[in-house]
Amino acid sequence: MSQTVDPCFEKRLAEAAARLETGLSDALSGTAFLVAGAPERLLAAMRHGALDGGKRLRPFLVEESARLFGVEASRAAPVAQALELVHCYSLVHDDLPAMDDDDLRRGRPTVHRAYDEATAILAGDALLTLAFGLIADGAAPGEADARLTLIRLLSREAGAAGMAGGQALDLAAETATLDEVEIARMQAMKTGALIAFAAEAGAILAGASPADRQALRRFGEIVGLAFQLADDLLDETADAATLGKAAGKDASRGKKTLPALRGIDWTRAELDRLVAEAEGLLEPFGERAATLRETARFVARRSR
Amino acid sequence: MSQTVDPCFEKRLAEAAARLETGLSDALSGTAFLVAGAPERLLAAMRHGALDGGKRLRPFLVEESARLFGVEASRAAPVAQALELVHCYSLVHDDLPAMDDDDLRRGRPTVHRAYDEATAILAGDALLTLAFGLIADGAAPGEADARLTLIRLLSREAGAAGMAGGQALDLAAETATLDEVEIARMQAMKTGALIAFAAEAGAILAGASPADRQALRRFGEIVGLAFQLADDLLDETADAATLGKAAGKDASRGKKTLPALRGIDWTRAELDRLVAEAEGLLEPFGERAATLRETARFVARRSR
Repeated sequence: MSQTVDPCFEKRLAEAAARLETGLSDALSGTAFLVAGAPERLLAAMRHGALDGGKRLRPFLVEESARLFGVEASRAAPVAQALELVHCYSLVHDDLPAMDDDDLRRGRPTVHRAYDEATAILAGDALLTLAFGLIADGAAPGEADARLTLIRLLSREAGAAGMAGGQALDLAAETATLDEVEIARMQAMKTGALIAFAAEAGAILAGASPADRQALRRFGEIVGLAFQLADDLLDETADAATLGKAAGKDASRGKKTLPALRGIDWTRAELDRLVAEAEGLLEPFGERAATLRETARFVARRSR
Repeated sequence: MSQTVDPCFEKRLAEAAARLETGLSDALSGTAFLVAGAPERLLAAMRHGALDGGKRLRPFLVEESARLFGVEASRAAPVAQALELVHCYSLVHDDLPAMDDDDLRRGRPTVHRAYDEATAILAGDALLTLAFGLIADGAAPGEADARLTLIRLLSREAGAAGMAGGQALDLAAETATLDEVEIARMQAMKTGALIAFAAEAGAILAGASPADRQALRRFGEIVGLAFQLADDLLDETADAATLGKAAGKDASRGKKTLPALRGIDWTRAELDRLVAEAEGLLEPFGERAATLRETARFVARRSR
């Protein structure tokens, strides 16, 4: 398995992030139908929680999985934006004092620190609410069924059986010790579900075959596993300056991660294995899947 | 305007509430696709927040507005359930310590008292997430566009420009004194938006004409105004035993309501005026709208 990376990849990722940023900023402007008339302070808190954020991996996966089936980025944009809003709302709520109680996120004050707790709860609620509106808005002729499928699936992956459920299990882990199987289940729900959805979403939008849709979903699940492992490894090895948030936080709360249980060498080998599996899943798509392959490598490499 | 009430009305309302209860209980069962695999404790908290609740006015309005255009209750059920879940999630979050800090809801412990704060935040999030999945699920052939329209509109009415925005304004009212116009705006967003959506939803599902859809929406707005006035009047005049929650709470927080500003006589006259206006809007629909007319009277009469 090659660890070399296409020099254009990070440029492509950054361009997609910039497009996403513009789209989200438009969706959160005071003139957008879905939020026009919102109280200014609430809208500002929503923007604080959603804009200027991270690498935007999930929307990038939506765009690239759509492109794999010939769907252009502009058609995938509402779904990409919606998914990122769901991710952002979850960060706003996870940071709350009753949850992870974090003061910093990407080096900036969290929403409840920059505003207040009630506003952060409502801003998260409103971001989640907006996400579903974006997918429902502006469907092209013939696209309505795919949009409904995406909403239904996002509801499952983001809800009690997916991300929100995973966060509930993660919080429970502060007082109970999870074994490896339970950790894997928690992480598959908390982090994996949205990433798997991202990779599957493009195939759904394109009306791809069930087999192709399944391959993309499995690819997304593996990328999600690699993402979480790399993140936990980073938490084991890096300091706060690199992370933009408190390092070693999971460990200090008694939460076990796989890198903590299995060691750094095992984790690096497992990351290599996951990348190889992800690449194998994309083989039938040939060169068209080059960027998705790079994405898997990129995600695993974050920890190095 | 008649203040007499069809003796069958309350029976009809109770039957619809029972149907809704069954539907919600199914949607929140561990075998339902959208939540299957959810952590038990989280699902239990969601059930605590959503089941056994109130008169279920909003889903009743959805059913009855659908029936007005010949759409049977079973087809309206997913939308009715979704809307009630949105209402219930908002109660779970509004009750949180950082928001209204309530210990009791309908005479039972609020979700964060029965479970814990983090679980209540997540249960609310998951109820909201589930709501959109329900509308997207199981659309009949030809129904996809109407379902998308409903999701888009619910996103607006429940989000920053609607219910969540209204709650933000309501919280801000604890430290600033709102004038009558500001109170009306806050209440139209916080309470009115979902009730207006409920009345409009049936018309959307049925593919009714824009004029009919607009009439139903306006009817819903007026019912929403009456609902809030009746509620505030009740808060002025009733005691905790009648309400199942702390009475006079708004006043004790320095929040002004229209009944507090204008007096009880004005409020009763205004309720009569609103009922007459609501009935007028339904005149073109003749006898078919009898139940909706009763609904307006029922809502206004709650305070008597």
